[in-house]
Amino acid sequence: MKVYEFKGFPNPARVRIALAEKGLFKNAEFVQVDVTTGEHLTPEFLAKNPSAVVPVLELEDGTTISESSAITEYLDHIAGEPDLTGKTAKDRAVIAMMQRKVEAGLLDAIGAYFHIGTDGLGPQVENYHDEAWGERQKGNALQTMEWMNSILADQPYLAGDHFSVADITAMAGFAFADFVALEIPERCAHLHAWRARVSERPSAALAA
Amino acid sequence: MKVYEFKGFPNPARVRIALAEKGLFKNAEFVQVDVTTGEHLTPEFLAKNPSAVVPVLELEDGTTISESSAITEYLDHIAGEPDLTGKTAKDRAVIAMMQRKVEAGLLDAIGAYFHIGTDGLGPQVENYHDEAWGERQKGNALQTMEWMNSILADQPYLAGDHFSVADITAMAGFAFADFVALEIPERCAHLHAWRARVSERPSAALAA
Repeated sequence: MKVYEFKGFPNPARVRIALAEKGLFKNAEFVQVDVTTGEHLTPEFLAKNPSAVVPVLELEDGTTISESSAITEYLDHIAGEPDLTGKTAKDRAVIAMMQRKVEAGLLDAIGAYFHIGTDGLGPQVENYHDEAWGERQKGNALQTMEWMNSILADQPYLAGDHFSVADITAMAGFAFADFVALEIPERCAHLHAWRARVSERPSAALAA
Repeated sequence: MKVYEFKGFPNPARVRIALAEKGLFKNAEFVQVDVTTGEHLTPEFLAKNPSAVVPVLELEDGTTISESSAITEYLDHIAGEPDLTGKTAKDRAVIAMMQRKVEAGLLDAIGAYFHIGTDGLGPQVENYHDEAWGERQKGNALQTMEWMNSILADQPYLAGDHFSVADITAMAGFAFADFVALEIPERCAHLHAWRARVSERPSAALAA
C-alpha cells in the first residue's frame, strides 16, 4: 500500500503512528506531497483526495482512502493487536467519541489557528485569512487541553485503560501545538504525564 | 437507553434515522433538551456532554456517548442488518471516509453558516458572529453538494451500492439545508435522485 503524505506534518503523523502500532510500517510505501509548494492542489492529487489534504492511503486495487480516522479504521481491521478502535459496541463508541472530540477540539482547532489565523504555509497555498476565527480556535484548543486533563485524572489513556486512536490523534495534535508554540498549561499535570507516557511508545519515534 | 435530543434538529435526526434503520427506535426513551433556551448549557447537561450539543446517548450503566458518529457506531454494533458502518476493512474505511467528508463539508458547514454567519438560535445562546466565515462555510456546503453529485453519478449511495451512515449524515445535512433555505443546485441531478431515493425509506419519516 502507498501512503501519500508530507513527512513531519500532523495528519500524516496519525497514520505513521497507527502503522507503527499495528506492525505495518514496513508494508507502506511513503510518497511525499509537498503541500508548501501546492502539490496537493494538482489535478492528479485532487483525483486521489478532493479535500486536497494529506494523508491518503492507496490500496493495491487503486482504492484511495482519505481522512485519517478512516485510514486508521482500515489499518486496525487488517492486523491484530494492539486494538486501536475497540471491539465491543461500547468500547468502539467511547473510542470514536473521544477520537472525534480530540480531533475537532485540539488537532483541527490548531489547524484552523495556523492556516486561517496566521500566515500558515504562506500566500502561495493559503487562500483565506480570518484572525478572529483563528484566535477563537486557539482558545478552543486550550479549553480542550483542560478537558483532556480532567479526563486523564481518572484514567491513563483518553478512552480508558488502553491506548487507542484517540491517543494517536492527540499525539499528532500536540506535535502541531509544539509547531505553533502553543503550550500545555502547566497546571494540566495529568495531561503532561500522559504526554510523557505516550512519547515513550516506539511508534512516537516514527511519527515524523 | 436514553437519547437526549431536540426534536427536529439535524444532529438528533442522525440518531433517530440510525435507530429506525436498526429496528431500535422503540428501545429509546427520548428526552428533550431545549437548545433554544440554553438547556444544553446547564451543568447537568454539560456533565453528559462537555461539548454542549445534542444528541447524547445514555446507556443503562450511565455511560454517556456523544458525537453522532460514535452513537451510530454503538447502535450498529448492538443490532444486525442493515449494516450501517461496514464489515470488511475496506468497506469500513470507505464508509468512514464518506461519512466524515459529508459531516465536515455539508452538515458542519451548514451548521457554521447558521450559528456563526447568521443570527442562528438568537443572542441568548449564540456567543460568536463572523459573517465572512459563515459565507465561506455556505460556499463549502455548495461545493460539497457538487462533489456528492459527481460521486452519485456512478453509484446509488454515497459509500457505494448500499445505504450507510454516510447517507444518514447527508439526510440530516439536507434537512438542515432546507431549514436555512440552501437549495441543491438544479444541475445536480444525481443528488436530487439520491435525495428522492433515501426520502422513501421508512426511517426518513421518523427523523423529526
